[in-house]
Amino acid sequence: MPATSAASVTSVTVGSDLHLEVRGPGLRTGLMDALREAVRTGRLTPGTRLPSSRTLAADLGIARNTVADAYAELVAEGWLTARQGSGTRVARRAAPRARTPSGPPARPARPTPTHSLRVGTPDLGSFPRAEWLAAARRALAVAPYDAFDYGDERGRPELRAALADYLARTRGVYADPERVVLCSGFVHGLALMGRVLAARRGRPTGKARGGAAGKARAVAVESYGLDFHRDILTAAGLRTPALPLDELGTRTAELASGEGELRGVDAVLLTPAHQYPTGAALHSDRRAEAVDWARRTGGLILEDDYDGEFRYDRQPVGALQGLDPERVVHLGTASKSLAPGLRLAWMVLPEALVGEVTGAKGRVGTVPSALDQLTLAEFLASGAYDRHVRSMRLRYRRRRDQLVEALAARAPECRVTGISAGLHAVVELPPGRGERAMTDSAARHGLDIRGLSAFRHPSLPPVAREALVIGFGAPTESAWPGALDALCRVLE
Amino acid sequence: MPATSAASVTSVTVGSDLHLEVRGPGLRTGLMDALREAVRTGRLTPGTRLPSSRTLAADLGIARNTVADAYAELVAEGWLTARQGSGTRVARRAAPRARTPSGPPARPARPTPTHSLRVGTPDLGSFPRAEWLAAARRALAVAPYDAFDYGDERGRPELRAALADYLARTRGVYADPERVVLCSGFVHGLALMGRVLAARRGRPTGKARGGAAGKARAVAVESYGLDFHRDILTAAGLRTPALPLDELGTRTAELASGEGELRGVDAVLLTPAHQYPTGAALHSDRRAEAVDWARRTGGLILEDDYDGEFRYDRQPVGALQGLDPERVVHLGTASKSLAPGLRLAWMVLPEALVGEVTGAKGRVGTVPSALDQLTLAEFLASGAYDRHVRSMRLRYRRRRDQLVEALAARAPECRVTGISAGLHAVVELPPGRGERAMTDSAARHGLDIRGLSAFRHPSLPPVAREALVIGFGAPTESAWPGALDALCRVLE
Repeated sequence: MPATSAASVTSVTVGSDLHLEVRGPGLRTGLMDALREAVRTGRLTPGTRLPSSRTLAADLGIARNTVADAYAELVAEGWLTARQGSGTRVARRAAPRARTPSGPPARPARPTPTHSLRVGTPDLGSFPRAEWLAAARRALAVAPYDAFDYGDERGRPELRAALADYLARTRGVYADPERVVLCSGFVHGLALMGRVLAARRGRPTGKARGGAAGKARAVAVESYGLDFHRDILTAAGLRTPALPLDELGTRTAELASGEGELRGVDAVLLTPAHQYPTGAALHSDRRAEAVDWARRTGGLILEDDYDGEFRYDRQPVGALQGLDPERVVHLGTASKSLAPGLRLAWMVLPEALVGEVTGAKGRVGTVPSALDQLTLAEFLASGAYDRHVRSMRLRYRRRRDQLVEALAARAPECRVTGISAGLHAVVELPPGRGERAMTDSAARHGLDIRGLSAFRHPSLPPVAREALVIGFGAPTESAWPGALDALCRVLE
Repeated sequence: MPATSAASVTSVTVGSDLHLEVRGPGLRTGLMDALREAVRTGRLTPGTRLPSSRTLAADLGIARNTVADAYAELVAEGWLTARQGSGTRVARRAAPRARTPSGPPARPARPTPTHSLRVGTPDLGSFPRAEWLAAARRALAVAPYDAFDYGDERGRPELRAALADYLARTRGVYADPERVVLCSGFVHGLALMGRVLAARRGRPTGKARGGAAGKARAVAVESYGLDFHRDILTAAGLRTPALPLDELGTRTAELASGEGELRGVDAVLLTPAHQYPTGAALHSDRRAEAVDWARRTGGLILEDDYDGEFRYDRQPVGALQGLDPERVVHLGTASKSLAPGLRLAWMVLPEALVGEVTGAKGRVGTVPSALDQLTLAEFLASGAYDRHVRSMRLRYRRRRDQLVEALAARAPECRVTGISAGLHAVVELPPGRGERAMTDSAARHGLDIRGLSAFRHPSLPPVAREALVIGFGAPTESAWPGALDALCRVLE
């Protein structure tokens, strides 16, 4: 709240029943506010003649000009009318409206759970506030004027260069800055790709698209994933048939040999580094099959590399994009490595798609805040990003180890599956311990977790795979032990 | 660019012709990069058998494990294959691709003009870097953890409260924080409103919508305005018929009495405080007529209050929204008062629309950066925003005065029209000095300005109003005198 000056209150009763309170250091604006409020609440009704400025000024003990000015303002705004001979009146259209108490919030607040193991959120307590501010200071000190302008739809050149360097170095991405496009979160990037792919409808592309004629264009998705990712593609007018998956990751060979809905898809959305949420790494043969399919058919691979930096049992496997930068769109985000609140994500695009994607952004397309872009560029270039990722990697790795150990000791029938990576793990439940019963029990224990079935593609039959998805990255460091203990109590 | 450690370079010739250079402090990653690059550029072709890890390690003078690790990584990534008995080979699909030189940029750079009087941009040199950083520091020091999360689709509560207070105080806006929704620039807000209005198609609304049945829904626009604002509405599937205007602003009475395209429109987009770009303030009768129309028909007014804080001849006229908060959507932006690069704008919505608009944002809707939101909240609450606006008001006012004086002295046949407000002015040209000839001449003088006709609604006949739109706000303080002089040289 702003520091308001000590309010001086002047009050007066106008006519028989109108009591005006004029507050604040500015008498003119105070009077205007009081009059507007009186009209709004119906205490002054349309057509009512107001006292002359001379009379009201005398009553309030203020200068006549102040009242005259306030009247003139309110006439200009349309609250009052002033006609020769009939004085100043409340305008006809300034009908009273009850001052509603603050309505219910748009999204009703749910009771906050005591512990969160919500998947998809990093440890928000770890956001490197001081280092980020220091980077912001350095970035602002050298930013050119035009950094504050609308700017390139792809994003700031400083950040595109820093990301290209970082992604090449840590993820094996072939990343020319000219093909890096910033967006406001992964979902924004996916929506842009959806628009680009949907716009191709009816336009012949690729070499072997037989059989797709007349059908809506399609992006194949993994059979487990986020419903709102599928929704974004569906909203763009695309079909989203499911690719089956197993412990070696998604069965990309189905792209080539697929029947029915999978026949002739235009693109595929994959999480090669760490299948979301089941946790497999895409096997090298399957990586190759995906690229082969894309080359043969002119298809596109959307590589969602949401947590590729967080691998604990070995060095991270390089991005799929490196294998064929002209057939793979690499999508990365700062939402897991730093914070979702930054709304900062990036795409590394095939050269031929850069124009189409920036075109889909619209004339004054959405780019993230220029200040955050400059700050992240400096954060990357100074090595602060590497240091932060390294320290978070250690932290998340320790938590995953603790999760595995705690369950082995306290709920040995439950098994953690998936590679040692990321900010979440899948906990397979033993027979007889239903997923739904466990999430309900967790909720009663004040623990916010989701079952694996929440991520299942709607076309899949409800299989007998009962599991929980545990976002061990979500709690702050101090809340983690309590959250882990609560989970064990639910499962033991 | 990151501070790379001094690169240690190890190089070796493999077989008869492959020369590898392994750079950097990390030998494994250096070797991987060198191998990837050799495959990409075709120096290593698919199927080629690589030397054994023992041989290559000896040649490079590094540990055998390092080479074996690098091979294993590249197998996992899909660059190489390793089969029992056939050694390590370049994978079949790792086809060579020419390393393209950086392609042409998506938007070809035009030669930068020497002077800019481009309308729509504030003085970017004035961005209050130190004060902004100080506010960011204070905001980050007290921000709760959840400020870094995805958060409310309306935006941070701190900022919604600070804006509600500021807008009530300075613009007479009836602004309950619950109905304030942050967006990424005015254009994002307009696109959201377009989606909401278009989604009403076929649904009966309002009381007197006779005659509109079967027609596409429509948002009336002013007959001068920005083409890409119209385009956004058109892209949402809405018609955008034009309302005529004169020196008292847009003739809103046509909404009620209009024929043809103007019959039964659903909403109207207005710039009441300062018509963009012609510069009139909407007369109080016309404000009232717009509100009357909206009430009678259930129509909606979209109030684009892009520069309402910048009025020089009097106190700013309060926002139209105050007259009927349930029929007016108030749209404001930090793009003129601070900088477009922040991508920060806001809507104050009728209570009944809050849910629809946040729904249009999508599940993980676009909100501006949480850090910028928190910083702006602190900037507003601390009074820094008021101080900045005050100081910019003085600066822009002085520039407008200088423009008027300079033209009176050096080009007396040209006349500055529109109210004394904002960051731009319209300069009417005398007969015989065509708008097109003047903008061409300006371009030759290295001066970037636009003619008024660039803002004309396409349905309007090309009238004989030849004028230039001068964005006197655009230059930095030091560039302003030169830009003004260049303009005078073109016009005198």
